[in-house]
Amino acid sequence: MIENQFTELLKMKYPIIQAPMAGGITTNSLVSAVSNNGGLGMIGAGYMGPEQLKNQVRELKTQTKIFGVNLFVPNDFLLVENKMKTANEALETVLAKFNLEKNVLLPTKESFSENYFEQIKVVVEEKVPVCSFTFGVPTKVIIDELKEEGIFVIGTATTVEEAIHIEQLGMDAVVAQGYEAGGHRGNFLQTNQRSIGVMSLVPQIVDHVSIPVIAAGGIMDGRGLAAALCLGAEAVQMGTAFLTTTESGANQVHKEAILQAAEEEIVETRAFSGKYAQGIRNTFIDAMTEYEKDLPDFPIQNALTQPMRKAAAIHKDKEYMSLWSGQSPRLAKNQTVKKLIEDTMREAGEMIK
Amino acid sequence: MIENQFTELLKMKYPIIQAPMAGGITTNSLVSAVSNNGGLGMIGAGYMGPEQLKNQVRELKTQTKIFGVNLFVPNDFLLVENKMKTANEALETVLAKFNLEKNVLLPTKESFSENYFEQIKVVVEEKVPVCSFTFGVPTKVIIDELKEEGIFVIGTATTVEEAIHIEQLGMDAVVAQGYEAGGHRGNFLQTNQRSIGVMSLVPQIVDHVSIPVIAAGGIMDGRGLAAALCLGAEAVQMGTAFLTTTESGANQVHKEAILQAAEEEIVETRAFSGKYAQGIRNTFIDAMTEYEKDLPDFPIQNALTQPMRKAAAIHKDKEYMSLWSGQSPRLAKNQTVKKLIEDTMREAGEMIK
Repeated sequence: MIENQFTELLKMKYPIIQAPMAGGITTNSLVSAVSNNGGLGMIGAGYMGPEQLKNQVRELKTQTKIFGVNLFVPNDFLLVENKMKTANEALETVLAKFNLEKNVLLPTKESFSENYFEQIKVVVEEKVPVCSFTFGVPTKVIIDELKEEGIFVIGTATTVEEAIHIEQLGMDAVVAQGYEAGGHRGNFLQTNQRSIGVMSLVPQIVDHVSIPVIAAGGIMDGRGLAAALCLGAEAVQMGTAFLTTTESGANQVHKEAILQAAEEEIVETRAFSGKYAQGIRNTFIDAMTEYEKDLPDFPIQNALTQPMRKAAAIHKDKEYMSLWSGQSPRLAKNQTVKKLIEDTMREAGEMIK
Repeated sequence: MIENQFTELLKMKYPIIQAPMAGGITTNSLVSAVSNNGGLGMIGAGYMGPEQLKNQVRELKTQTKIFGVNLFVPNDFLLVENKMKTANEALETVLAKFNLEKNVLLPTKESFSENYFEQIKVVVEEKVPVCSFTFGVPTKVIIDELKEEGIFVIGTATTVEEAIHIEQLGMDAVVAQGYEAGGHRGNFLQTNQRSIGVMSLVPQIVDHVSIPVIAAGGIMDGRGLAAALCLGAEAVQMGTAFLTTTESGANQVHKEAILQAAEEEIVETRAFSGKYAQGIRNTFIDAMTEYEKDLPDFPIQNALTQPMRKAAAIHKDKEYMSLWSGQSPRLAKNQTVKKLIEDTMREAGEMIK
């Protein structure tokens, strides 16, 4: 089961993808280490401008042959006055705490879309080998354009219906993102959809699509890889496990918070970005609970909290940082990418045929 | 991995436990079919009186040698006037719809505990081979008494901390009940604890206890069994998969609702019993959403909705029945217990060493 259609298509040694965590975690040091040790390294480019993306991709090409880029598909959003008022009220104390102004440059629907189209242009021009999408699906025109360039296109689904949609659009593979996954939820067909656990999500998606399914959520070691392959996945996407590696660009405070966390501390919140995401509970999440449902949508809330997150990171104050993590923090280790991948493969190989 | 410490201890052929679903599902027809086909059949005795339990156990003994009984550990609860008012207001329309009186005999803390102690007495006197517990843990005195009689004692945990607690009390094995599981959540150390997905919960518990871990939640076939064993579990507990079998005593309306459901329809609600439980969304759950947080606790709310659930079942009205289901309804089949167990074992055997 370890060698399959998916690893063959991408000429990968192992069915392990490093999740495209946005926000400075997926440095070329991490991405190239993953790809050069038999997995697929991914740049989490969601928040990047086209120039920054192009520079990282060009440098990365000198370090490894196979890699991927992940983009956020822009959603429609409105600037709702009441929600802005709630956010400003909710954030007042914390902005004052870090001596920050409350006025930030807000993204517009146009600027958000424009950046996305420019990112796509970089991916096409640089012939990035793999491009995955979250928060929605690209148009058929974009998918066809990428595929014409020989780019392998991956979608992200949180339900069977979303996976079918991704296959029908002609994408090459689908990430089945389960409830256990850290960071942002990729649901797009229904905004209020509850997450489905990996144990339920993967086999139900596998039964309804014929493209390769990549399991994501809570997978940290050979046990998780073996389990995911048994459920019918052809590869796994591991985020938290790579976040705490030596090569990861994650803030040291973030790494240590995960290494010390218990599964009970992992919560889901839209306080940081306006979109539900999973991570370690802290003072900011608790303080936002009462406002949570009335905060602006992504990416407005994300822009509003960005200065705070930046200041908190500088002050090494984990209580105001977004400490994204999946539900298996007790399985996280501080180790090299090489050791993580080798141990995972050896352990899984001992269990499955 | 298929034969292990757990199957050896219980002299079971296969590491498959039929989940103890309460409320008339676990008839002797179901329980004996499971045990006689190599698994462990369980009576969901939570809501039973001692006489009823004794009768079922005595009859079952003539049909099979190995089986178990599951009991609800009584929680402290209060009769809160405001909550009763909310419940009566919320239930008024639906009770009128079925021509039901709103006055029902409410359980008291005393009657609830008394029934539990009488159930324990039956388990001891009848030397039931296996006794599992949910909603809490029995006292050390009860555990020791059961173990002295050679009864195998199983606890139910939803977090690592609960599993450690169960092992420290001297229980023989622990069910790791994940987010995907249908029916009631077994959390007991913290009432507001979020559920953890099976992919994350099982290996984290396995790393912290030395007693056998039984995985529960979303497991429906050989893929799920193989995956759970890879995660480190020594057995699985399957509920929904057995609920839709020919031998199960579940209402036909309930069986058909599961066979037709999608994973997106599975929700968590405390509208039926006052305790969070997972099942198929219907009119009653939707109507209760606005009152949900203010309804009385288990078992008060359970008693208040019982006449409605009974009447709805008689009228085959699935909109007012509690249609408990795990998150994998698309994997449910209408088949015999023998076929379910044999297919599950064959499929898992093809994948794991």
